[in-house]
Amino acid sequence: MSLLVVGSVALDTVRTPFGMVEDALGGSAVFFAAAASTHTPAYVVGVIGDDFPRDKLAFLEERGVDLSGLVEEVGESFRWAGEYSYDLNSRETLETRLGVFADFKPVIPPAARQCPIVFLGNIHPQLQIDVLNQMDEPRLVAADTMNFWIEGERSALLDLLERVDLLMINDEEARQLAGVPNLLKAARWIQDRGPDHLVVKKGEHGSILFGKNDLFFLPGFPLEDVFDPTGAGDSFAGGFLGYLGSRDHWDEDTFRRAMVYGSVAGSFAVERFSIDRFRTLSREDVAERVRDFKRITTFEVELEHV
Amino acid sequence: MSLLVVGSVALDTVRTPFGMVEDALGGSAVFFAAAASTHTPAYVVGVIGDDFPRDKLAFLEERGVDLSGLVEEVGESFRWAGEYSYDLNSRETLETRLGVFADFKPVIPPAARQCPIVFLGNIHPQLQIDVLNQMDEPRLVAADTMNFWIEGERSALLDLLERVDLLMINDEEARQLAGVPNLLKAARWIQDRGPDHLVVKKGEHGSILFGKNDLFFLPGFPLEDVFDPTGAGDSFAGGFLGYLGSRDHWDEDTFRRAMVYGSVAGSFAVERFSIDRFRTLSREDVAERVRDFKRITTFEVELEHV
Repeated sequence: MSLLVVGSVALDTVRTPFGMVEDALGGSAVFFAAAASTHTPAYVVGVIGDDFPRDKLAFLEERGVDLSGLVEEVGESFRWAGEYSYDLNSRETLETRLGVFADFKPVIPPAARQCPIVFLGNIHPQLQIDVLNQMDEPRLVAADTMNFWIEGERSALLDLLERVDLLMINDEEARQLAGVPNLLKAARWIQDRGPDHLVVKKGEHGSILFGKNDLFFLPGFPLEDVFDPTGAGDSFAGGFLGYLGSRDHWDEDTFRRAMVYGSVAGSFAVERFSIDRFRTLSREDVAERVRDFKRITTFEVELEHV
Repeated sequence: MSLLVVGSVALDTVRTPFGMVEDALGGSAVFFAAAASTHTPAYVVGVIGDDFPRDKLAFLEERGVDLSGLVEEVGESFRWAGEYSYDLNSRETLETRLGVFADFKPVIPPAARQCPIVFLGNIHPQLQIDVLNQMDEPRLVAADTMNFWIEGERSALLDLLERVDLLMINDEEARQLAGVPNLLKAARWIQDRGPDHLVVKKGEHGSILFGKNDLFFLPGFPLEDVFDPTGAGDSFAGGFLGYLGSRDHWDEDTFRRAMVYGSVAGSFAVERFSIDRFRTLSREDVAERVRDFKRITTFEVELEHV
């Protein structure tokens, strides 16, 4: 089942306690597509400047990612530079140069308008709505957002929510959006505004799936060596929706498994700079981590208590 | 299997966004014993002043808790007063009056020296060692500690660790004790110094069990209404060790279930002030929450990936 992602395609300069990279492939659409590609190739809609080193994208194309919706404009590509603290728990943005991304107006090519699954990366909510207006009744609309839009574009964001089936945000964003400190109450507030499903990501502390009548808690996959947290959230979304795209029938068990595949994708993403871990990632690597996940999260209830 | 707990017996004055209590029953030994009592009655060793309202302890005795090791000294009882922030995520200590607890020298009565399970509540590590020196080869020694001892009594704490089978601390304490930001590495450092088992508590984010050859992640039990977080950690320990005390055979599955019972006990503790929720708590209430826990944490791996 084909997958459309609309988001940023960027060149990231990242410094962590373990090293640094300059102008590495980044952006929400890139991490999403790289992670999803283990399950389902995605169709990418985005913009790059005429300075973009096209050869960096070859890997995605090899994995079946369709880049025909990636427009090149005259000007600079989107660049982001950041530095992580010694324990990787906080980061400082050193530079953001939007370049051609500042005027990004997503145009969905005819071939992509029938994609049944759409992921709206973290861009202005009005642009996210503009994307949906170009689509032919997708089966599942998923969206990300951030504190900047929650604070500054609340009205557009609430309009968007009415048309979103699955919102994927972090716990702080969920609390901020709902204006409620308790996460269960915040989730209900958000679901009342549209999305049947809500995924709340808590970084190393795991993630929570709020379904129509389901609730599922997944711890974070434990890693001894986190190398670069950049892109973990978009990789989560890619693993999640890529998995859904590989399954025709969706029930709450399918969504729970999608959480696991999302979390596994996020855990791989942070083991290397940029999307590098995905370059060598096999389906068997993914399956092994899913089995490990099952092993470290399972307990049996005693018969007398069942 | 009988259970010994050595720790504080206090009078707590607590203010939360939802109300306040004055001189309510508190202290690590009290929360521990109240939570454990659903499974196994505990033997409490502690100290109170001659101002302590003894009738407050009647409930524990009704639940089978043995208070013959609770010594009354001339002077004031240990009192603690604190206030929680609006989202309950931080608290300010308003007053600590140690009273007779300042000179607490635990003496284990002969009848309690053969308890197979010992919980050393958060007191000076040298006192924790003194307790162990009075015991007849317990089957399981569990201990709590805190940043104050990690910083100021490191040497005694490391001596203690060599004699502890199960350390139960929070994630910040684990990182601080090991001097390593990564939790998996911190856990290995701690386990190398003695404890076969380590439980790392992360509050609402759940808990992690590090066994000899086992690793188990449990999310926090989701609650819409947290009323008073005081005592959650000691209640966790009480539920955990109380459950172990109710089982003769222990394997890693038993320890995983103990995590669930510990977490469930902690979740009940915070639903009311003091130990009030335990007053009406039935085994069926516990069993129901264990089943709920199973329901919200389970996923099935697809056959092709098993």
